[in-house]
Amino acid sequence: MITIYLDSNYKKPYYEQIYEYIRDEIKKGNIVHNEKLPSGRKLAEHLGVSRSTVDTAYAQLVAEGYIKSSPQRGYFVCEIDELLNILPVSYPISSVQSKEEKRFKYDFSPTGADSLNFPDTYWRKLSRECISYDDGTIFRSSEPQGDIGLRRELFNYLHQNRGVNGSPDNIIIGAGSQYLMMLLLKLIKPRSIIAMENPAYMPAFETFESLDRQVVPVPVDEGGMSVKELNRTEANIAYVTPSHQYPLGMVMTVNRRTGLLNWANYEPDRYVIEDDYDSEFRYQGKPIPALQSMDRGKKVIYMGTFSKVVSPAIRISYMLLPDSLMNRYRQTFSNFPSTVSRLDQAIMTRFLKEGYFERHLNRLRNRYRSRHDVLIKELKGFGELIRLSGIHAGSSVVMEWMGKMTEEELLECAEQQGIMLYPLKKYTIAPMFQMYPTFLMGFAQLTEEDIKAAVSLLKEVWR
Amino acid sequence: MITIYLDSNYKKPYYEQIYEYIRDEIKKGNIVHNEKLPSGRKLAEHLGVSRSTVDTAYAQLVAEGYIKSSPQRGYFVCEIDELLNILPVSYPISSVQSKEEKRFKYDFSPTGADSLNFPDTYWRKLSRECISYDDGTIFRSSEPQGDIGLRRELFNYLHQNRGVNGSPDNIIIGAGSQYLMMLLLKLIKPRSIIAMENPAYMPAFETFESLDRQVVPVPVDEGGMSVKELNRTEANIAYVTPSHQYPLGMVMTVNRRTGLLNWANYEPDRYVIEDDYDSEFRYQGKPIPALQSMDRGKKVIYMGTFSKVVSPAIRISYMLLPDSLMNRYRQTFSNFPSTVSRLDQAIMTRFLKEGYFERHLNRLRNRYRSRHDVLIKELKGFGELIRLSGIHAGSSVVMEWMGKMTEEELLECAEQQGIMLYPLKKYTIAPMFQMYPTFLMGFAQLTEEDIKAAVSLLKEVWR
Repeated sequence: MITIYLDSNYKKPYYEQIYEYIRDEIKKGNIVHNEKLPSGRKLAEHLGVSRSTVDTAYAQLVAEGYIKSSPQRGYFVCEIDELLNILPVSYPISSVQSKEEKRFKYDFSPTGADSLNFPDTYWRKLSRECISYDDGTIFRSSEPQGDIGLRRELFNYLHQNRGVNGSPDNIIIGAGSQYLMMLLLKLIKPRSIIAMENPAYMPAFETFESLDRQVVPVPVDEGGMSVKELNRTEANIAYVTPSHQYPLGMVMTVNRRTGLLNWANYEPDRYVIEDDYDSEFRYQGKPIPALQSMDRGKKVIYMGTFSKVVSPAIRISYMLLPDSLMNRYRQTFSNFPSTVSRLDQAIMTRFLKEGYFERHLNRLRNRYRSRHDVLIKELKGFGELIRLSGIHAGSSVVMEWMGKMTEEELLECAEQQGIMLYPLKKYTIAPMFQMYPTFLMGFAQLTEEDIKAAVSLLKEVWR
Repeated sequence: MITIYLDSNYKKPYYEQIYEYIRDEIKKGNIVHNEKLPSGRKLAEHLGVSRSTVDTAYAQLVAEGYIKSSPQRGYFVCEIDELLNILPVSYPISSVQSKEEKRFKYDFSPTGADSLNFPDTYWRKLSRECISYDDGTIFRSSEPQGDIGLRRELFNYLHQNRGVNGSPDNIIIGAGSQYLMMLLLKLIKPRSIIAMENPAYMPAFETFESLDRQVVPVPVDEGGMSVKELNRTEANIAYVTPSHQYPLGMVMTVNRRTGLLNWANYEPDRYVIEDDYDSEFRYQGKPIPALQSMDRGKKVIYMGTFSKVVSPAIRISYMLLPDSLMNRYRQTFSNFPSTVSRLDQAIMTRFLKEGYFERHLNRLRNRYRSRHDVLIKELKGFGELIRLSGIHAGSSVVMEWMGKMTEEELLECAEQQGIMLYPLKKYTIAPMFQMYPTFLMGFAQLTEEDIKAAVSLLKEVWR
């Protein structure tokens, strides 16, 4: 007969103490395979507990497979292949993983964004309203492609501001460009080869690399990706940033756009991915229409995100697919629920619909324009020592250094002044000829005063 | 000289009217390749506008590649390969895509959840607090794996309630199981073959199919997936639901668990994916520890989600990886930002930390238990005509019909009464022998009254 010391002061109920005792005895091998356990009635009498207490313990042991019940005969211990040890383990938390980053006072990151940009007052207001007055729908699951209300507002915005054609039915909302890219790569030809501009938008390049896709670099000139060079590759997908080449900042010419669409129309499996990154920011003239607006052969996949202009914490990106790919999406992914929470979708819908987005964008554009203008003005103080390009748009400009110092010397001097700079060569995916040291000067996360102070520090040390 | 009719009442500025006129003339072929445009000064005089108005229009045409500037010589029309038409297109919205679904009064869906379950009061309270008192951090981007605060709370919960071992460092938070599965499939051997229980959790099966993965079905018996059968396959990944086999509801025995871990330890590329779906709901005894708690060879990938217990609209799922895969994740995906918005992460963190989750779970468990008990009691009224299994856990039970009517007849009769039933065979991924018509009876989205009414209707028509 099993004797178990039952502790009534112990916070665990009796049945659990009995269960644990027998389980541990089996695991230690003290009660062995096929051994018969005392009947529930007998064990209950022996331990001075109720019959149901023992029955509950036995039921648990049966449920977990330690013992089995044989009708009319009683309970028997199962065969356990291996001694098992389920020990509580205390976990070590790695002592703050983030690499020891050197803190720079002035960071000219070309991908940075000002956290002050975030329209928190409005976003909070809308968020509170969506939460408080909602009838519960925001807590039910969303359509796989994203809520139709959001897709309609987004389509209107894209159509009016970017000349994008199509329908809200062809829009897919997703939690980040990486996720959308993962979906897209499943819709196009399995072993697609992707042509990218060199230099390139590195996050996209890294996404393709992470997903094991073959990338071929194609040189760019002042008109954008060279279609002539593209034609020499085996690529069937061209990933481009026509509105504002990342990182060089030029606009793809109409000729090049036509050439690219002709290239895509040549084979059924060819597509162009247009990443319309930073297209919201032009400080001269009117916005350049998206390449997608010229697409008649249904060859352009249009991608964009709210992460840059609203907040990186708001994970809402989108893509607009040609009909052919949209049909494949419906066949393949209609069972994948949307990755964006409905609350965020509801807030974003109102943000667009009620004009907050447009006002926010105007405010941001003005702020960036001032920073852009200050940066250009300050850098011009270097006179003949520098050459600027890729200006009047986006959130960075390209600066070539024609002075005597080498790139390493320039970087080192800047670093000593607490200034973080980004050499163009960090954005190349294949060797690229550079006559002079070249830097991308991002101005999105620096105030006008910061820009003045930083450039003035550079003037002291650079020659 | 170009004569443009400039309309001062028109809402477009002059520069834009000039730009559009010239652009359209080029596109129509009225101004041809290499034709020289009038100088800015001359055109401005001619049109009676300021010089800067014309310069702005020309700059836009240059930016878009319609004309080019030749220093000292003036502006020339570029060669345009093809006549382009950028026409505004009105989009047709498909007239409500959703298939005309027959409305059923009583839906015994085994995957359904009661939308009333959602703890909206608390969630809204926390949401308002996170939005109002936040210092802005929730609007900055999150760590790729998810916020460490959330991962710590989640780990504590899993460790205490499911016996899960490891560290918050090995947790990845993502917007839905499908997204996490996409990541995971990139971390394991490229052409992995996945063994699944038959019958299976269909959303997982569909995910694997959508992602082109080869799935081999492995039969289950009352102890769970047959390891003997598993060993006969070429599979290197076993996807299992040990706590509560979906859909049959049995618990994987300790023996089977050990066998499965031994199988995985046999080859370095072998892993077990433990989907701990529905493990929160047991109505008798204490919860069954997760298979992962027995894993010493670091072979178990533990997956779970808050979508089922909190809300399908809250897109927060998670997986805990063994160190080997975690290292690969860090190498491969550290540049993929988290797919869950920081606000949702912040709310979920407090929801766990401040005990709301546990209370919510208890409330939900009690509600489901009552529905479960009522369903069992009502079904037992059929006497010898039915046999029940997979009871006391999850959100559905399995019902076999031993009467004379065929499955089709049973379904048809139920349908006529407005009752939606789910035959087990819908959940099989390979042929499976069934002695009797078998249904999964989900009780999560029906009230006790609904259950009573529906079963009583069935009693009138079934024999």
